[in-house]
Amino acid sequence: MIILGIDPGYAIMGWGVIRKTGSSYQPLAYGAVTTDKDTPMPERLKHLYSGLMDVISEYQPEEASIEKLYFNTNVTTAIGVGEARGVAILACANSGLGIFEYTPLEIKTSLTGFGRAEKKQVQSMVTKILRLENVPKPDDVADALAAALTHAYSGEARKRLNQVK
Amino acid sequence: MIILGIDPGYAIMGWGVIRKTGSSYQPLAYGAVTTDKDTPMPERLKHLYSGLMDVISEYQPEEASIEKLYFNTNVTTAIGVGEARGVAILACANSGLGIFEYTPLEIKTSLTGFGRAEKKQVQSMVTKILRLENVPKPDDVADALAAALTHAYSGEARKRLNQVK
Repeated sequence: MIILGIDPGYAIMGWGVIRKTGSSYQPLAYGAVTTDKDTPMPERLKHLYSGLMDVISEYQPEEASIEKLYFNTNVTTAIGVGEARGVAILACANSGLGIFEYTPLEIKTSLTGFGRAEKKQVQSMVTKILRLENVPKPDDVADALAAALTHAYSGEARKRLNQVK
Repeated sequence: MIILGIDPGYAIMGWGVIRKTGSSYQPLAYGAVTTDKDTPMPERLKHLYSGLMDVISEYQPEEASIEKLYFNTNVTTAIGVGEARGVAILACANSGLGIFEYTPLEIKTSLTGFGRAEKKQVQSMVTKILRLENVPKPDDVADALAAALTHAYSGEARKRLNQVK
Protein backbone atom coordinates (compact mmCIF):
# COMPACT_ATOMS: atom_id res chain seq x y z
CA MET A 1 0.00 0.00 0.00
CA ILE A 2 1.38 3.37 -1.05
CA ILE A 3 0.17 6.36 0.95
CA LEU A 4 0.47 10.07 0.17
CA GLY A 5 0.48 12.37 3.20
CA ILE A 6 -0.31 16.05 2.70
CA ASP A 7 0.10 19.06 4.97
CA PRO A 8 -1.98 21.67 3.13
CA GLY A 9 -0.98 25.32 2.81
CA TYR A 10 -0.83 27.88 0.03
CA ALA A 11 2.76 29.02 0.57
CA ILE A 12 4.08 25.53 1.35
CA MET A 13 2.19 22.34 0.50
CA GLY A 14 4.13 19.57 2.24
CA TRP A 15 3.88 16.05 0.82
CA GLY A 16 5.36 12.66 1.61
CA VAL A 17 4.91 9.26 0.00
CA ILE A 18 5.48 6.06 1.98
CA ARG A 19 5.07 2.39 1.23
CA LYS A 20 3.54 0.16 3.88
CA THR A 21 4.55 -3.49 3.67
CA GLY A 22 3.17 -5.48 6.60
CA SER A 23 4.40 -3.53 9.58
CA SER A 24 7.30 -1.95 7.75
CA TYR A 25 7.28 1.61 6.44
CA GLN A 26 9.50 2.84 3.67
CA PRO A 27 9.80 6.47 2.53
CA LEU A 28 9.52 6.68 -1.26
CA ALA A 29 9.82 10.45 -1.67
CA TYR A 30 8.95 13.66 0.10
CA GLY A 31 9.09 17.37 -0.53
CA ALA A 32 7.01 20.51 -0.81
CA VAL A 33 5.23 22.40 -3.55
CA THR A 34 5.88 26.04 -2.78
CA THR A 35 4.46 29.30 -4.10
CA ASP A 36 5.64 32.87 -3.84
CA LYS A 37 3.60 35.42 -1.91
CA ASP A 38 3.81 37.88 -4.81
CA THR A 39 2.17 35.43 -7.22
CA PRO A 40 -1.58 35.94 -7.73
CA MET A 41 -3.69 33.37 -5.88
CA PRO A 42 -5.14 31.73 -9.03
CA GLU A 43 -1.61 30.98 -10.27
CA ARG A 44 -0.61 29.69 -6.84
CA LEU A 45 -3.56 27.31 -6.72
CA LYS A 46 -2.85 26.13 -10.26
CA HIS A 47 0.80 25.46 -9.35
CA LEU A 48 -0.15 23.59 -6.16
CA TYR A 49 -2.65 21.44 -8.05
CA SER A 50 -0.29 20.54 -10.88
CA GLY A 51 2.57 19.94 -8.45
CA LEU A 52 0.49 17.41 -6.51
CA MET A 53 -0.79 15.84 -9.73
CA ASP A 54 2.85 15.30 -10.74
CA VAL A 55 3.61 13.61 -7.40
CA ILE A 56 0.54 11.37 -7.70
CA SER A 57 1.35 10.48 -11.29
CA GLU A 58 4.95 9.61 -10.40
CA TYR A 59 4.40 7.56 -7.22
CA GLN A 60 0.87 6.23 -7.83
CA PRO A 61 -0.37 6.28 -4.22
CA GLU A 62 -3.63 4.44 -3.53
CA GLU A 63 -4.69 6.48 -0.53
CA ALA A 64 -4.15 10.01 0.72
CA SER A 65 -3.95 11.26 4.29
CA ILE A 66 -4.59 14.96 4.77
CA GLU A 67 -4.07 16.89 7.95
CA LYS A 68 -7.24 18.50 9.20
CA LEU A 69 -6.85 22.18 9.83
CA TYR A 70 -7.69 24.16 12.92
CA PHE A 71 -7.37 27.85 13.32
CA ASN A 72 -7.59 30.26 16.13
CA THR A 73 -6.44 33.01 13.82
CA ASN A 74 -8.48 35.15 11.49
CA VAL A 75 -11.11 33.86 9.12
CA THR A 76 -9.56 35.44 6.02
CA THR A 77 -6.43 33.33 6.45
CA ALA A 78 -8.65 30.28 6.98
CA ILE A 79 -10.32 30.87 3.60
CA GLY A 80 -6.92 31.06 1.88
CA VAL A 81 -5.75 27.85 3.50
CA GLY A 82 -9.13 26.31 2.71
CA GLU A 83 -8.59 27.17 -0.96
CA ALA A 84 -5.23 25.39 -0.96
CA ARG A 85 -6.71 22.42 0.90
CA GLY A 86 -9.54 22.30 -1.63
CA VAL A 87 -7.19 21.95 -4.60
CA ALA A 88 -5.15 19.31 -2.72
CA ILE A 89 -8.29 17.26 -2.06
CA LEU A 90 -9.36 17.78 -5.69
CA ALA A 91 -6.02 16.50 -7.01
CA CYS A 92 -6.47 13.32 -4.95
CA ALA A 93 -10.16 12.93 -5.85
CA ASN A 94 -9.55 13.47 -9.58
CA SER A 95 -6.85 10.79 -9.38
CA GLY A 96 -9.21 8.28 -7.74
CA LEU A 97 -7.41 8.06 -4.38
CA GLY A 98 -9.20 7.10 -1.18
CA ILE A 99 -8.95 10.23 0.97
CA PHE A 100 -8.60 10.27 4.75
CA GLU A 101 -8.05 13.01 7.29
CA TYR A 102 -6.62 13.23 10.79
CA THR A 103 -6.51 16.03 13.32
CA PRO A 104 -3.19 17.29 14.69
CA LEU A 105 -4.18 15.64 18.00
CA GLU A 106 -4.67 12.26 16.30
CA ILE A 107 -1.37 12.55 14.46
CA LYS A 108 0.56 13.44 17.62
CA THR A 109 -1.09 10.65 19.59
CA SER A 110 -0.53 8.13 16.83
CA LEU A 111 3.20 8.84 16.54
CA THR A 112 4.22 9.64 20.10
CA GLY A 113 1.40 8.22 22.23
CA PHE A 114 0.87 11.70 23.60
CA GLY A 115 -1.65 14.22 22.18
CA ARG A 116 0.20 17.23 23.51
CA ALA A 117 3.58 16.21 22.17
CA GLU A 118 5.90 18.94 20.90
CA LYS A 119 6.42 19.34 17.16
CA LYS A 120 10.03 18.20 17.63
CA GLN A 121 8.99 14.92 19.24
CA VAL A 122 6.73 14.15 16.28
CA GLN A 123 9.49 15.01 13.82
CA SER A 124 11.94 12.88 15.70
CA MET A 125 9.55 9.90 15.54
CA VAL A 126 9.00 10.40 11.79
CA THR A 127 12.75 10.45 11.27
CA LYS A 128 13.25 7.32 13.38
CA ILE A 129 10.38 5.25 11.95
CA LEU A 130 11.37 6.00 8.35
CA ARG A 131 15.09 5.62 9.14
CA LEU A 132 15.93 9.02 7.64
CA GLU A 133 19.35 10.56 8.12
CA ASN A 134 17.93 13.97 8.97
CA VAL A 135 14.65 15.52 10.06
CA PRO A 136 12.82 16.44 6.82
CA LYS A 137 12.63 20.19 6.26
CA PRO A 138 10.63 22.39 6.22
CA ASP A 139 8.27 21.36 9.02
CA ASP A 140 5.44 20.95 6.50
CA VAL A 141 7.25 18.00 4.90
CA ALA A 142 7.74 16.24 8.24
CA ASP A 143 4.06 16.93 9.01
CA ALA A 144 3.00 15.41 5.70
CA LEU A 145 5.03 12.25 6.44
CA ALA A 146 3.51 12.18 9.93
CA ALA A 147 0.01 12.28 8.36
CA ALA A 148 0.95 9.43 6.02
CA LEU A 149 2.30 7.34 8.91
CA THR A 150 -0.78 8.03 11.03
CA HIS A 151 -2.94 6.65 8.24
CA ALA A 152 -0.65 3.65 7.80
CA TYR A 153 -1.02 2.93 11.54
CA SER A 154 -4.72 3.61 11.73
CA GLY A 155 -6.16 0.16 10.99
CA GLU A 156 -9.75 0.16 12.14
CA ALA A 157 -9.50 3.78 13.21
CA ARG A 158 -9.02 5.06 9.66
CA LYS A 159 -11.04 8.18 9.10
CA ARG A 160 -12.36 8.87 5.66
CA LEU A 161 -12.61 12.54 4.83
CA ASN A 162 -16.29 13.08 4.77
CA GLN A 163 -18.62 15.97 5.36
CA VAL A 164 -17.94 19.52 6.42
CA LYS A 165 -18.37 19.49 10.15
CA MET B 1 -16.54 40.08 -23.94
CA ILE B 2 -18.05 37.05 -22.22
CA ILE B 3 -17.93 37.07 -18.42
CA LEU B 4 -18.54 34.24 -15.97
CA GLY B 5 -19.78 35.29 -12.53
CA ILE B 6 -19.41 32.86 -9.62
CA ASP B 7 -20.90 32.85 -6.13
CA PRO B 8 -18.79 30.16 -4.44
CA GLY B 9 -20.19 27.63 -2.00
CA TYR B 10 -19.91 23.88 -1.48
CA ALA B 11 -23.64 23.11 -1.32
CA ILE B 12 -24.59 25.57 -4.07
CA MET B 13 -22.08 27.06 -6.52
CA GLY B 14 -24.01 29.76 -8.36
CA TRP B 15 -22.84 30.73 -11.84
CA GLY B 16 -23.98 33.12 -14.54
CA VAL B 17 -22.57 33.91 -17.98
CA ILE B 18 -23.21 37.28 -19.62
CA ARG B 19 -22.05 38.89 -22.85
CA LYS B 20 -21.05 42.54 -22.77
CA THR B 21 -21.40 44.36 -26.10
CA GLY B 22 -20.65 48.07 -25.75
CA SER B 23 -22.95 49.11 -22.93
CA SER B 24 -25.42 46.29 -23.47
CA TYR B 25 -25.53 43.16 -21.33
CA GLN B 26 -27.02 39.90 -22.46
CA PRO B 27 -27.51 36.81 -20.28
CA LEU B 28 -26.19 33.70 -22.03
CA ALA B 29 -26.92 31.13 -19.34
CA TYR B 30 -27.08 30.80 -15.57
CA GLY B 31 -27.58 28.10 -13.00
CA ALA B 32 -26.00 26.35 -10.05
CA VAL B 33 -23.80 23.33 -9.50
CA THR B 34 -25.18 21.72 -6.37
CA THR B 35 -23.94 18.97 -4.07
CA ASP B 36 -25.67 16.92 -1.43
CA LYS B 37 -24.68 17.26 2.22
CA ASP B 38 -24.41 13.48 2.58
CA THR B 39 -21.80 13.24 -0.18
CA PRO B 40 -18.17 13.10 1.03
CA MET B 41 -16.34 16.40 0.58
CA PRO B 42 -13.82 15.06 -1.99
CA GLU B 43 -16.69 13.99 -4.26
CA ARG B 44 -18.42 17.32 -3.76
CA LEU B 45 -15.31 19.26 -4.74
CA LYS B 46 -14.79 17.02 -7.76
CA HIS B 47 -18.40 17.58 -8.86
CA LEU B 48 -18.14 21.37 -8.38
CA TYR B 49 -14.91 21.48 -10.38
CA SER B 50 -16.19 19.40 -13.29
CA GLY B 51 -19.51 21.28 -13.30
CA LEU B 52 -17.72 24.61 -13.67
CA MET B 53 -15.35 23.15 -16.28
CA ASP B 54 -18.43 22.12 -18.30
CA VAL B 55 -19.85 25.66 -18.07
CA ILE B 56 -16.52 27.19 -19.13
CA SER B 57 -16.14 24.73 -21.98
CA GLU B 58 -19.66 25.41 -23.25
CA TYR B 59 -19.75 29.22 -23.03
CA GLN B 60 -16.05 30.05 -23.40
CA PRO B 61 -15.92 33.08 -21.09
CA GLU B 62 -12.78 35.22 -21.25
CA GLU B 63 -12.94 36.57 -17.72
CA ALA B 64 -14.32 35.40 -14.41
CA SER B 65 -15.71 37.49 -11.56
CA ILE B 66 -15.81 35.81 -8.18
CA GLU B 67 -17.50 37.13 -5.09
CA LYS B 68 -15.10 37.67 -2.23
CA LEU B 69 -16.19 35.95 0.93
CA TYR B 70 -16.59 37.38 4.38
CA PHE B 71 -17.52 35.46 7.45
CA ASN B 72 -18.46 36.29 10.96
CA THR B 73 -19.31 32.67 11.59
CA ASN B 74 -17.04 29.86 12.61
CA VAL B 75 -13.66 29.14 11.08
CA THR B 76 -14.49 25.51 10.23
CA THR B 77 -17.26 26.66 7.88
CA ALA B 78 -14.85 29.18 6.38
CA ILE B 79 -12.39 26.40 5.54
CA GLY B 80 -15.14 24.42 3.80
CA VAL B 81 -16.25 27.40 1.75
CA GLY B 82 -12.58 28.19 1.08
CA GLU B 83 -12.17 24.68 -0.34
CA ALA B 84 -15.10 25.22 -2.72
CA ARG B 85 -13.79 28.65 -3.67
CA GLY B 86 -10.36 27.13 -4.31
CA VAL B 87 -11.67 24.62 -6.84
CA ALA B 88 -13.76 27.37 -8.52
CA ILE B 89 -10.66 29.55 -8.91
CA LEU B 90 -8.69 26.52 -10.12
CA ALA B 91 -11.29 25.72 -12.79
CA CYS B 92 -10.98 29.30 -14.10
CA ALA B 93 -7.17 29.35 -13.83
CA ASN B 94 -6.75 25.98 -15.55
CA SER B 95 -8.96 27.31 -18.36
CA GLY B 96 -6.83 30.44 -18.82
CA LEU B 97 -9.48 32.97 -17.73
CA GLY B 98 -8.57 36.37 -16.28
CA ILE B 99 -9.88 36.20 -12.71
CA PHE B 100 -11.31 39.14 -10.76
CA GLU B 101 -12.97 39.47 -7.40
CA TYR B 102 -15.36 41.91 -5.77
CA THR B 103 -16.61 42.27 -2.23
CA PRO B 104 -20.35 42.12 -1.45
CA LEU B 105 -20.12 45.87 -0.73
CA GLU B 106 -18.66 46.57 -4.17
CA ILE B 107 -21.30 44.44 -5.87
CA LYS B 108 -24.16 46.13 -4.03
CA THR B 109 -22.76 49.59 -4.73
CA SER B 110 -22.12 48.79 -8.36
CA LEU B 111 -25.67 47.58 -9.02
CA THR B 112 -27.78 49.78 -6.77
CA GLY B 113 -25.52 52.75 -5.95
CA PHE B 114 -25.92 51.87 -2.31
CA GLY B 115 -23.51 49.65 -0.34
CA ARG B 116 -26.11 48.67 2.23
CA ALA B 117 -28.75 47.67 -0.28
CA GLU B 118 -30.98 44.71 0.56
CA LYS B 119 -30.45 41.42 -1.26
CA LYS B 120 -33.83 41.92 -2.96
CA GLN B 121 -32.82 45.27 -4.40
CA VAL B 122 -29.71 43.71 -5.94
CA GLN B 123 -31.74 40.83 -7.35
CA SER B 124 -34.28 43.23 -8.76
CA MET B 125 -31.53 45.21 -10.54
CA VAL B 126 -30.00 42.00 -11.97
CA THR B 127 -33.43 41.00 -13.29
CA LYS B 128 -34.04 44.43 -14.81
CA ILE B 129 -30.59 44.94 -16.38
CA LEU B 130 -30.60 41.49 -18.00
CA ARG B 131 -34.30 41.78 -18.96
CA LEU B 132 -35.16 38.47 -17.29
CA GLU B 133 -38.76 37.45 -16.78
CA ASN B 134 -38.18 36.33 -13.20
CA VAL B 135 -35.62 36.77 -10.45
CA PRO B 136 -33.07 33.93 -10.91
CA LYS B 137 -33.30 31.31 -8.17
CA PRO B 138 -31.72 30.29 -5.86
CA ASP B 139 -30.14 33.49 -4.51
CA ASP B 140 -26.69 32.14 -5.35
CA VAL B 141 -27.49 32.33 -9.07
CA ALA B 142 -28.66 35.94 -8.84
CA ASP B 143 -25.51 36.70 -6.82
CA ALA B 144 -23.33 35.13 -9.50
CA LEU B 145 -24.98 37.25 -12.21
CA ALA B 146 -24.54 40.30 -9.96
CA ALA B 147 -20.80 39.53 -9.71
CA ALA B 148 -20.59 39.19 -13.50
CA LEU B 149 -22.40 42.52 -14.03
CA THR B 150 -20.18 44.26 -11.46
CA HIS B 151 -17.14 43.18 -13.42
CA ALA B 152 -18.74 44.24 -16.70
CA TYR B 153 -19.36 47.70 -15.19
CA SER B 154 -16.01 48.00 -13.48
CA GLY B 155 -13.95 49.66 -16.22
CA GLU B 156 -10.88 51.15 -14.59
CA ALA B 157 -11.96 49.84 -11.19
CA ARG B 158 -11.56 46.19 -12.20
CA LYS B 159 -9.96 44.21 -9.43
CA ARG B 160 -7.81 41.28 -10.32
CA LEU B 161 -7.85 38.48 -7.78
CA ASN B 162 -4.42 38.68 -6.32
CA GLN B 163 -2.82 37.82 -3.04
CA VAL B 164 -4.29 36.47 0.14
CA LYS B 165 -4.95 39.55 2.22
